[in-house]
Amino acid sequence: MAPKKLQVAAAGLGRMGHRHALNFLNRTPRAELVAAFSPDPAELQWGKQHLEPFGVTLYDNYDKMLEHQGLDAVVIGTATSVHAEEAIKAMEKNLHVLCEKPLSTSIEVCKEVVEAAKKRPHLKVMCGFSRRFDDSYRDAYNKVEQGLIGRPTIVRSQTCDKHDPSGFFVAYAAWSGGVFVDMSVHDIDLTLWFFGDDVVPKSISAHGVVAVQPGLKQHKDYDNAVGIVEFWNGKIAHYYCSRMMAHGQEDVTEIIGTEGKLSVNLNPQNSLVNYYHSGGITREVPAHYYGRFEMAFVREANEFTDACLDNTPLPMKLRNAVKAVEIGAWLQEALVTGKQIHFDETGKRIEKASL
Amino acid sequence: MAPKKLQVAAAGLGRMGHRHALNFLNRTPRAELVAAFSPDPAELQWGKQHLEPFGVTLYDNYDKMLEHQGLDAVVIGTATSVHAEEAIKAMEKNLHVLCEKPLSTSIEVCKEVVEAAKKRPHLKVMCGFSRRFDDSYRDAYNKVEQGLIGRPTIVRSQTCDKHDPSGFFVAYAAWSGGVFVDMSVHDIDLTLWFFGDDVVPKSISAHGVVAVQPGLKQHKDYDNAVGIVEFWNGKIAHYYCSRMMAHGQEDVTEIIGTEGKLSVNLNPQNSLVNYYHSGGITREVPAHYYGRFEMAFVREANEFTDACLDNTPLPMKLRNAVKAVEIGAWLQEALVTGKQIHFDETGKRIEKASL
Amino acid sequence: MAPKKLQVAAAGLGRMGHRHALNFLNRTPRAELVAAFSPDPAELQWGKQHLEPFGVTLYDNYDKMLEHQGLDAVVIGTATSVHAEEAIKAMEKNLHVLCEKPLSTSIEVCKEVVEAAKKRPHLKVMCGFSRRFDDSYRDAYNKVEQGLIGRPTIVRSQTCDKHDPSGFFVAYAAWSGGVFVDMSVHDIDLTLWFFGDDVVPKSISAHGVVAVQPGLKQHKDYDNAVGIVEFWNGKIAHYYCSRMMAHGQEDVTEIIGTEGKLSVNLNPQNSLVNYYHSGGITREVPAHYYGRFEMAFVREANEFTDACLDNTPLPMKLRNAVKAVEIGAWLQEALVTGKQIHFDETGKRIEKASL
Amino acid sequence: MAPKKLQVAAAGLGRMGHRHALNFLNRTPRAELVAAFSPDPAELQWGKQHLEPFGVTLYDNYDKMLEHQGLDAVVIGTATSVHAEEAIKAMEKNLHVLCEKPLSTSIEVCKEVVEAAKKRPHLKVMCGFSRRFDDSYRDAYNKVEQGLIGRPTIVRSQTCDKHDPSGFFVAYAAWSGGVFVDMSVHDIDLTLWFFGDDVVPKSISAHGVVAVQPGLKQHKDYDNAVGIVEFWNGKIAHYYCSRMMAHGQEDVTEIIGTEGKLSVNLNPQNSLVNYYHSGGITREVPAHYYGRFEMAFVREANEFTDACLDNTPLPMKLRNAVKAVEIGAWLQEALVTGKQIHFDETGKRIEKASL
Repeated sequence: MAPKKLQVAAAGLGRMGHRHALNFLNRTPRAELVAAFSPDPAELQWGKQHLEPFGVTLYDNYDKMLEHQGLDAVVIGTATSVHAEEAIKAMEKNLHVLCEKPLSTSIEVCKEVVEAAKKRPHLKVMCGFSRRFDDSYRDAYNKVEQGLIGRPTIVRSQTCDKHDPSGFFVAYAAWSGGVFVDMSVHDIDLTLWFFGDDVVPKSISAHGVVAVQPGLKQHKDYDNAVGIVEFWNGKIAHYYCSRMMAHGQEDVTEIIGTEGKLSVNLNPQNSLVNYYHSGGITREVPAHYYGRFEMAFVREANEFTDACLDNTPLPMKLRNAVKAVEIGAWLQEALVTGKQIHFDETGKRIEKASL
Repeated sequence: MAPKKLQVAAAGLGRMGHRHALNFLNRTPRAELVAAFSPDPAELQWGKQHLEPFGVTLYDNYDKMLEHQGLDAVVIGTATSVHAEEAIKAMEKNLHVLCEKPLSTSIEVCKEVVEAAKKRPHLKVMCGFSRRFDDSYRDAYNKVEQGLIGRPTIVRSQTCDKHDPSGFFVAYAAWSGGVFVDMSVHDIDLTLWFFGDDVVPKSISAHGVVAVQPGLKQHKDYDNAVGIVEFWNGKIAHYYCSRMMAHGQEDVTEIIGTEGKLSVNLNPQNSLVNYYHSGGITREVPAHYYGRFEMAFVREANEFTDACLDNTPLPMKLRNAVKAVEIGAWLQEALVTGKQIHFDETGKRIEKASL
Repeated sequence: MAPKKLQVAAAGLGRMGHRHALNFLNRTPRAELVAAFSPDPAELQWGKQHLEPFGVTLYDNYDKMLEHQGLDAVVIGTATSVHAEEAIKAMEKNLHVLCEKPLSTSIEVCKEVVEAAKKRPHLKVMCGFSRRFDDSYRDAYNKVEQGLIGRPTIVRSQTCDKHDPSGFFVAYAAWSGGVFVDMSVHDIDLTLWFFGDDVVPKSISAHGVVAVQPGLKQHKDYDNAVGIVEFWNGKIAHYYCSRMMAHGQEDVTEIIGTEGKLSVNLNPQNSLVNYYHSGGITREVPAHYYGRFEMAFVREANEFTDACLDNTPLPMKLRNAVKAVEIGAWLQEALVTGKQIHFDETGKRIEKASL
Repeated sequence: MAPKKLQVAAAGLGRMGHRHALNFLNRTPRAELVAAFSPDPAELQWGKQHLEPFGVTLYDNYDKMLEHQGLDAVVIGTATSVHAEEAIKAMEKNLHVLCEKPLSTSIEVCKEVVEAAKKRPHLKVMCGFSRRFDDSYRDAYNKVEQGLIGRPTIVRSQTCDKHDPSGFFVAYAAWSGGVFVDMSVHDIDLTLWFFGDDVVPKSISAHGVVAVQPGLKQHKDYDNAVGIVEFWNGKIAHYYCSRMMAHGQEDVTEIIGTEGKLSVNLNPQNSLVNYYHSGGITREVPAHYYGRFEMAFVREANEFTDACLDNTPLPMKLRNAVKAVEIGAWLQEALVTGKQIHFDETGKRIEKASL
């Protein structure tokens, strides 16, 4: 008898959602995509062409999709605003959940999801921070674990997007939570991975400018921002996020330890080709994050599937996803208010008056 | 109704064969692996564990496998000595064929396969030169096609393996056809791609040494060899092949044109990580060709499948596979005899006496 | 008649001083080293061997050296604490001055030097920020001037030293002014260069740790620190300084503009050699700043000489040297107090109460 | 008393000659440029402006310059055709000689110089192969000496010039000795350095094309050529020379040993700057060999001076300069005739009939 395959439904078939759907359809051998939902007729039309012929049932109603016979798990790639509600509903139907980041831009809502998951410890509930599934970050992490750099002390990490002059990110800023929540949350998650989940912030500073997207000002957001998070155990992370790169996606991380250092993607490249011409030697850079992290998303789908089928631990804790958003929100607050934020050794925020 | 999937059988489940089988099983959405054959009990045992549970029927007899109901295509990954016979048998059963390189180390036998394929133009018969399916080589090829480097004039290409002290390659040399046929055939195939299939060799020189595998001498083979092929239309390719690399696989190609140059993989890397330590900055290198070319094999399986299902042209001509082996064999001859080989403008070999 | 050569005296023959002396002796064709001073017998002994035979008169008294017949200029490479006094004395003797950075760790004292220089506009008085004389930084600056990156918006710059376990830097911290004044002052100077001398800070944040040199705590200094300076015209600089590198000196700068980016020394290297071995591919890194910037010091000596002899403008303003130290001192204050510092649009500091 | 400085005269003030003159004038502390000769009025005019004011006596007659009072050494940077004659004349006047490469394009003439030098063992006579004085090649050589790569087995070395469309090299080809003698002679010299001076060639093959300078055909020369030299002790060198590079000077060497590999300048760069723009990431490349090797020429002048003053051994043997030209001439012969050349184990050439 053929081994059981995980029966998966995909919620959302937009920018990220359709990629998750295709990855579970085609690149996750132990999973079977059986259902997909979108509230958007255009997305459903796409599904009719690319999913339905392969046996995927389409739904325009999320609740109905959850009733799909034999369903084991849901991958949520809808708009951030409905992530949490959909995740909780899925858990209530006893389904495993792989949710696109973030669970929510509201910490309170994030915590509700964590609470819901805690009550159902037999379910696998993961918020996908794709970089944890990237070969190069895994390689770096293993080298840290082997002690190659001594005690990790400084993380420098940046998420820098190619400039998109379409204005998309201006509209998006209205509900994205701000650049630190939307972009740097990945860098913060990596920090929690490399420094340990239990690190406690001591103080947070952030500064930003609006350089190429003046419309961002109306949403109190920035297109370039720099932030520092100091932790109580003698560690510091500093971040740079930007939507202004001319050359493409440039997501770089350095982990500096007492005895060595690791860099990840310091020299971004689109392929192994260099072009030599009268102006010098040029290499191209991926235009988007999916060009950089495509295989990480594939691995994420596969490792999530393994954990569900084999009842093994997920490679990352749901709680971290909340902590990363929380730190991102503090950075954003420090950025917008222009004021440092301080915490005591238990992580409790110290109000300014008490300083 | 679900779209038709290509029904594929895999012949051979050894080093390369089992990878083809898994790629058709798991990473080729439009294909279905339905059967697999191996004459080797250990390989069949592996198949029992990794293929049979997923609906793949196992055979210990190649001819019987060809009778598998509904079969469309065979991927041949057995020992080189049986490639040609198996390919011809498959064609006789009206099956498409994807055959590991080379078709044979004998040019005569290669040509028989080409003849057999010519008689069945409706069949897709491809000899897999994986580098043609590699993203970076595709990128380089597109840049050449766009005219970025003017007229391609010089190809420098090397296939260099990590030193394997096990002695495997000494035994292998008995029937591999020699290093130029076994290793440089990839570089020659790339040359035909970048220079055009119709290039005619003018003269061939080669020199080699036995540096780390003295046992090779008994098979008149070498562990390091350098060769030059001059073509009649003012183009030159030079090759280096080695089985002596300390650091890993290093397959580099440069295409030098009248107005620019392209390099592929000049700086090999295993991941995007650099490790900084008291001795400097180090990056690791893939240990084997599959570490470098895994995704090319996946793409090969998918493009072969597309061509079969859609009856579209294959991305490379079967005849080239013969031409690449033929040039490889001449290089090997020049290497072993220590004598240059010359050709007239029609490609006819000029015997020494007539020089 | 031979062209006039600049008659130069060197004050200080220690770590940096002896290099200045040798550069003026041997590598500055239009200058002639005629005198040298040191209060330290060991340094004088070195001078007896390396300078005296070539016609350089040695002094153990700075004032007497200033009386040396025909003297035109003094290069000051003594301890920081006497830089200012020696510079002012030299000006009083109508001598041009090239002074090692910083003029002083006290802003007040720095300003006195600037005042003294203002009164003698015919004298060339320069505080040597060597990176302004480095080929690569010059190249980057020219590209910015050509508009290649649009409007410079973000500077990221780091000065990172190889870990010196000798304890030297613990003692040194007692009077160095702290890491931001001692190390990052170079990065701040570069910022003033790339952003323009007239930029006005808006707010300053800094955080640091003591990771490998616990003795630094007694001097309220740090071995790793991160700081952000936000300027009023929509520009941001962020800095990292460290004395903990395992691999060597790593001074990196990125200048990010609205239409492109420049990096300087992102991949440090000691030579053009890569070493391929069983652990991968390794390149070495200069162990010290002089390994990275030696030729910049040579160029500095030459350009200073040219300005003196030809009465042409110096390549950098003395006032900037003060401004760089001032910003460094604010960063250090923010680091030590754990509090952000704010400024109004005229650059006047805003006290906390008024926020 | 000031230490004795080497009194040097410069012969030739053209392309290379004026650089030698300036290096001895300004960048060789232990030498003093006292005289210079050129037969060319324009070059003498340059000397009037740049040398005479600094005490250098100019001559339009080589023999007269040799009579210059107190002269110790001559640096010869005139046209190749007079190198040998001038070198021998200088030796006859008991002067040390640093001669630009090659001594001559005629092996016979080269040997006469060597003979003349043998008779005067107290004189230092060096033919300048600048790469032996380059920091990076020195670094590589030291690593080989330390045994880091085991037994050196393969050298790949290329000298590739930026395309000069002026036609200069067509005229130059009339008397340059051909590309292998003019360009690859550096790579051959490096081979002798890395493999040992006593290596005996076994066979030589070469192939070339005229791709961008059709005028070269009249001089039986090529703008791209590839050659292989096999040595009797199990070593192979292969060379590529080109005058067709779009991007600049690209002189690369790889030394491959039984246990590791070294590369020199695999990624040429003009400075440490990378420019990030909408087309990717670009670094510039030096346009000419002096951009790559300037400091090697300076070091050459200094080490030659040291050897003369201290009567210490020169860093390279004069005989090697002949051997390098000899191998270059054989490569050129193999290139032009299209025939391999063979040698017996004593290095005696084996004529074709005897094969």
